[in-house]
Amino acid sequence: MSLVLNKEDLAEYLAQVFPQIRDDFAIDALTEDTITMRLLTRERHLRPGGTVSGPSMFALADVSVYAMVLARIGRQALAVTTNCSLDFMRKPESGRDVIAHCRLLKLGRMLAVCDVLMASEGSDKPVARASLTYSIPPR
Amino acid sequence: MSLVLNKEDLAEYLAQVFPQIRDDFAIDALTEDTITMRLLTRERHLRPGGTVSGPSMFALADVSVYAMVLARIGRQALAVTTNCSLDFMRKPESGRDVIAHCRLLKLGRMLAVCDVLMASEGSDKPVARASLTYSIPPR
Amino acid sequence: MSLVLNKEDLAEYLAQVFPQIRDDFAIDALTEDTITMRLLTRERHLRPGGTVSGPSMFALADVSVYAMVLARIGRQALAVTTNCSLDFMRKPESGRDVIAHCRLLKLGRMLAVCDVLMASEGSDKPVARASLTYSIPPR
Amino acid sequence: MSLVLNKEDLAEYLAQVFPQIRDDFAIDALTEDTITMRLLTRERHLRPGGTVSGPSMFALADVSVYAMVLARIGRQALAVTTNCSLDFMRKPESGRDVIAHCRLLKLGRMLAVCDVLMASEGSDKPVARASLTYSIPPR
Repeated sequence: MSLVLNKEDLAEYLAQVFPQIRDDFAIDALTEDTITMRLLTRERHLRPGGTVSGPSMFALADVSVYAMVLARIGRQALAVTTNCSLDFMRKPESGRDVIAHCRLLKLGRMLAVCDVLMASEGSDKPVARASLTYSIPPR
Repeated sequence: MSLVLNKEDLAEYLAQVFPQIRDDFAIDALTEDTITMRLLTRERHLRPGGTVSGPSMFALADVSVYAMVLARIGRQALAVTTNCSLDFMRKPESGRDVIAHCRLLKLGRMLAVCDVLMASEGSDKPVARASLTYSIPPR
Repeated sequence: MSLVLNKEDLAEYLAQVFPQIRDDFAIDALTEDTITMRLLTRERHLRPGGTVSGPSMFALADVSVYAMVLARIGRQALAVTTNCSLDFMRKPESGRDVIAHCRLLKLGRMLAVCDVLMASEGSDKPVARASLTYSIPPR
Repeated sequence: MSLVLNKEDLAEYLAQVFPQIRDDFAIDALTEDTITMRLLTRERHLRPGGTVSGPSMFALADVSVYAMVLARIGRQALAVTTNCSLDFMRKPESGRDVIAHCRLLKLGRMLAVCDVLMASEGSDKPVARASLTYSIPPR
């Protein structure tokens, strides 16, 4: 029921297994069953008009859940997404980071389930929500 | 941003448009953007083994969102579900009511989005989560 | 890659483990990776206005996938739904059975995934689609 | 019930409104209610180990549906994704394009729904499935 990796170890491990993630995401906070992850919004995440793209929002939700699960099960790079549902509700504000609030709802032997609420920094109106299932490799 | 129907008016309207719902569900609490709904678990909601059936859990999530939306837009029986995603995470405890905690995440002109966390009464371990989109009839 | 239960054995096993299902559903056809299941629409499946209820549509999708999975893995009553996503697209026609066309997309060691397209009998316009994941008990 | 844009006009319009898409995707085929779209798999779409990344699969599903909808409603760049559900079922094969087979299930006045089956080129085993809802701007 406790964290296997703290925030610093988790960030270091993510940077090691997904080098391309380092420039895009940062961990703001980590508890036993929540993680707050930030999309460092850059030009390449935008759609014409300045809004954050769908794939960037998906990536933010996905990496949040991956990080939450690894924080609890340790360095198991092979955890994989099996299911994701997403609702896009508002346009993210242009030029702002997107903040994902992720909750661990279930950590089973084989499957983990989280939900994620995403909002532009400084706003409390959710731009999107997601729920994801990860399959955990046998230990 | 405020409720159009209070808890009593909402319960009365639901009983009127969906008479079959009256025996199955009760509203525990209602705020501007949350509703707590209870499945009055009975024999007909159970699967062999005593667990609450999937369709009963779906019905609980669906009626929670319907009630939340009507509480905000008023007596619009024709609001309809367009999308639902559900994760079943644990077995509901046999012989207990299931409590749904529903949050309104978006109430737009055409679409409303809610998420729902469900747990057996007296437990804080979620048995299921759901997110639903309702289409709102033009006013 | 082949069926473990044929249509008759499957129907008999379903009736045995879920007696309440017998009056509601019938198997129209079964192949190695598809099943066609019918909701025998009755009064209790209807909403005011004559349309088939959401929980009845969910139940039809769910039982189709359950039956498809059992047809391949045999009498394993304990297979359980872990995830479901549903899109409701049109009103089912009143007084008609609803026909579900279910495809097995993946049958893994631990998880099975199917999608389901549902239409009122005699129509080719889908009223709903669903995709479900089942967790398969260790053998 | 017929196409408003043919394959060439659609490709040209997509390249114009989403210039960054041009290098990543190609339309293989288009009918009144189906589109076949190809992810031109490159280094930047891969995860360590050579598998195609989740965000790239999401992007492929999303652009397939966007293109299918525009082919039917014309140059309406402002159609937006409101919901997506995804099941990841197998590892895409490294070094292969991913082919998306997208079906239009509903084209309403306000909402369009499609499903998408994705497989590595040359394989008939689906690597992922998706269903998406698009909101269509008032005309």
